Amino acid sequence: MAKTKGPRRPRAEAPKGFRDDFGAELAERKAMLDTIAAVYHRHGFDPLETPAVETLEALGKYLPDVDRPHAGVFAWMEEEGGDWLALRYDLTAPLARVAAQYRNDLPSPYRRYAMGPVWRNEKPGPGRFRQFTQCDADTVGAASVAADAEICAMLADTLEAVGIPRGDYLVRINNRKVLNGVMEVVGLDDPDAHAEARGIVLRAIDKLDRLGEAGVRALLGQGRKDESGDFTRGAGLSGEQAEVVMRFLAARGATETETCARLSDLVSASAIGREGVAEIETIADLLAAQGFGADRVTLDPSVVRGLGYYTGPVFEAELTFEILDEQGRPRQFGSVAGGGRYDDLVKRFTGQEVPATGVSIGVDRLLAALRAKGRLKGATEGPVVVTVMDRDRMTDYFAMAAELRAAGIRAEVYLGNPKNFGNQLKYADRRAAPVAVIQGGDEAARGAVQLKDLILGARIAENASLEEWKSQPAQQEVPRADLVAAVRRILAR
Amino acid sequence: MAKTKGPRRPRAEAPKGFRDDFGAELAERKAMLDTIAAVYHRHGFDPLETPAVETLEALGKYLPDVDRPHAGVFAWMEEEGGDWLALRYDLTAPLARVAAQYRNDLPSPYRRYAMGPVWRNEKPGPGRFRQFTQCDADTVGAASVAADAEICAMLADTLEAVGIPRGDYLVRINNRKVLNGVMEVVGLDDPDAHAEARGIVLRAIDKLDRLGEAGVRALLGQGRKDESGDFTRGAGLSGEQAEVVMRFLAARGATETETCARLSDLVSASAIGREGVAEIETIADLLAAQGFGADRVTLDPSVVRGLGYYTGPVFEAELTFEILDEQGRPRQFGSVAGGGRYDDLVKRFTGQEVPATGVSIGVDRLLAALRAKGRLKGATEGPVVVTVMDRDRMTDYFAMAAELRAAGIRAEVYLGNPKNFGNQLKYADRRAAPVAVIQGGDEAARGAVQLKDLILGARIAENASLEEWKSQPAQQEVPRADLVAAVRRILAR
Repeated sequence: MAKTKGPRRPRAEAPKGFRDDFGAELAERKAMLDTIAAVYHRHGFDPLETPAVETLEALGKYLPDVDRPHAGVFAWMEEEGGDWLALRYDLTAPLARVAAQYRNDLPSPYRRYAMGPVWRNEKPGPGRFRQFTQCDADTVGAASVAADAEICAMLADTLEAVGIPRGDYLVRINNRKVLNGVMEVVGLDDPDAHAEARGIVLRAIDKLDRLGEAGVRALLGQGRKDESGDFTRGAGLSGEQAEVVMRFLAARGATETETCARLSDLVSASAIGREGVAEIETIADLLAAQGFGADRVTLDPSVVRGLGYYTGPVFEAELTFEILDEQGRPRQFGSVAGGGRYDDLVKRFTGQEVPATGVSIGVDRLLAALRAKGRLKGATEGPVVVTVMDRDRMTDYFAMAAELRAAGIRAEVYLGNPKNFGNQLKYADRRAAPVAVIQGGDEAARGAVQLKDLILGARIAENASLEEWKSQPAQQEVPRADLVAAVRRILAR
Repeated sequence: MAKTKGPRRPRAEAPKGFRDDFGAELAERKAMLDTIAAVYHRHGFDPLETPAVETLEALGKYLPDVDRPHAGVFAWMEEEGGDWLALRYDLTAPLARVAAQYRNDLPSPYRRYAMGPVWRNEKPGPGRFRQFTQCDADTVGAASVAADAEICAMLADTLEAVGIPRGDYLVRINNRKVLNGVMEVVGLDDPDAHAEARGIVLRAIDKLDRLGEAGVRALLGQGRKDESGDFTRGAGLSGEQAEVVMRFLAARGATETETCARLSDLVSASAIGREGVAEIETIADLLAAQGFGADRVTLDPSVVRGLGYYTGPVFEAELTFEILDEQGRPRQFGSVAGGGRYDDLVKRFTGQEVPATGVSIGVDRLLAALRAKGRLKGATEGPVVVTVMDRDRMTDYFAMAAELRAAGIRAEVYLGNPKNFGNQLKYADRRAAPVAVIQGGDEAARGAVQLKDLILGARIAENASLEEWKSQPAQQEVPRADLVAAVRRILAR
């Protein structure tokens, strides 16, 4: 017999890789975004909000590892034969579009901050979502590396403002021009002809943390076989060439001056390399003069940053403390923000070079770090719940809640089916209510209300038997006229 | 000769119907959203943030006038043969999905608020955008109309909190059940068989404001020809049937009691109608008991609300003051929020009826109203601009800005090309800077800075000749050590 089929019901699920955020986590995120915005604002950055949707051509193709057309972004055709539209994958591409579109109206330099969701059409995985929040600050129209220094200093200030103490983070700075100088010195100077080898070298440098010196050396040379037996092809550098790269990686000295001297020595044969070293020297001087020591912001040749569009200084903020991973093993938390100079992004639109630099903070990762360290309060303040003993007296209960709110106290009337009073107290528990207000006919007749102190109640419940609980003053009767004052006394405890 | 073509540059434009929001307007919107969130929160509502993207099947088809499949939403196929995904078109459909997905984990009733962008794939026009902000509060799982009353009261409180004074708004309440009762009385009781005529009647009621009584009567009967000669087909009611509808529209009395008595009389033959009247009576009683007079929240039979999914009370907040339209003619500002009860939305997913009610505030319209009435401050505080007289002394200028910021004063160093000092002052103007800080070699040598009071300067410039301006104390020299204190004195003026 054929099954009778009703209309198929839709699945009650967010699409794969998307998530819903609730109460306490949202409150934490909002507090963090507000704090970051305040720091950015105090530095003279103005807010900008671009739409979620851009034309695909305006976004360009700056996502890494894009083989298929439009891979990495959510894109669709506006209408048959119309424009391709897409969800923004970061906040930088829309800024470049805005800087070009409003170039005659915006102040120059234009400092702006932006915060909001971005979307990546990537395979979702544990902790990898297809919508996440970024929080960016950029300066458009400032050629001076003073702009880069400012962003790095502001990044350090921002991390401290959101609750990462000094010593638990490090802003590391490098310069693509120094990297390009190294490439030139080892003979990989043509970005097109040597594209593949340059890419392998950059990725090898980026993996120093994970692979160690020997692993990087293998990748610079013929290639590397990992534990699983998989072989990664190398850049094919000679031992001598590889040695230059390794010396570059080891160039970090005890002081910024020493680092700069070593780098300068290494790239002395390259004009672009010398320019790059001079730039990071200036950045280091500016930061030192403002009191940012190397314990907060430091030069580090191993910083690469993936995106292809960087043209000068690049930087990265890393949390230096360890957390336990899913398997309970300690590991460094790692990068929570990154950025750099991208002088060509606006040029895509206008043909004119517009210098720009900026940083993007991964707010969700930063929140996860603070959570892992137990540095977020987590719980939000639950409402006082006015219970319903007598459903014909809803107006009385509403009046109580209104009085509490007028006094600035979060309060609500129970709006479920009032028949089972136990359910109402369970509800109050679930809402993390600090107080339940109870008024049956008897209390009403004598002009009183019962107040149940649920926080004290929970504490007693943990440490005492039910009988003892009943005898405790976790519940008290007060005159109806004293409702607000009595609730306030309980909340103040 | 063929034109030489370089690679085509992308257009620097947001897609049609999308806009960018800058500094001051964003600050105003954020302040409004924060205020609304605070009111919602104080009423016991918890924040929820769902992703921008939902499966198309989860969203359902609740947009009005949807003929083509997926019309009205931005939708795309996830991958060849995969799910259809779409941008949410409101915040209610995602809430229904969440209420179904997490039904075992959420408190019940679940009060939640949400704010954020929604997207409509509609033809853009003046003032009509394809992305706009909504700000919703809903209660899921409360069958009692006390939940509807709470939302209406909260809506009135919210409007006052964002700056609409009492008397300038009205929350109008009706009930779909009363409307259904009227339909039953006039013989259009079958939602399917009489779908078309019912739709025409509802739209006619909704147009009372614009068409007046005669226009509505024509639409209830054979139809109506407008000034342009266009004919709109009517519902085909007899004169007697139409009379019932007209009496319904005129049922609003001097008091809520009178309104209810008239409605009760009108739908006495319909069970659903009687139920509807009883519900709005209860709502009116609850509101009156909390001190919400008919000058703030009132019963009004002409409220229809477009969306097909409402099943009970419906409400609408209207601003009652006049503004001037684009042609300079006065007109009522109209609706800024609306909502109602939708008991069937969650059922789509679970098969079980889950009562729900809620309101959506059109934040952009509300901001436009406050702007039109001059009730928004508009300007944001510009930063103090530290100018650059000597580009070798950037560290000094950065130190000044850092000192000002440490004292809580918004400050920045000019980061453009410092060669032309006039450009720096123009920049400071554009940034609405209150003060420019100037230190050339001479000032530095004597340990001083010049402070230019740009607000005073602008005021003098309006009322005095250039010569007079020069003699004014709009510029003063202070010891470098007094920088912060002196800037503070100027800002305090």
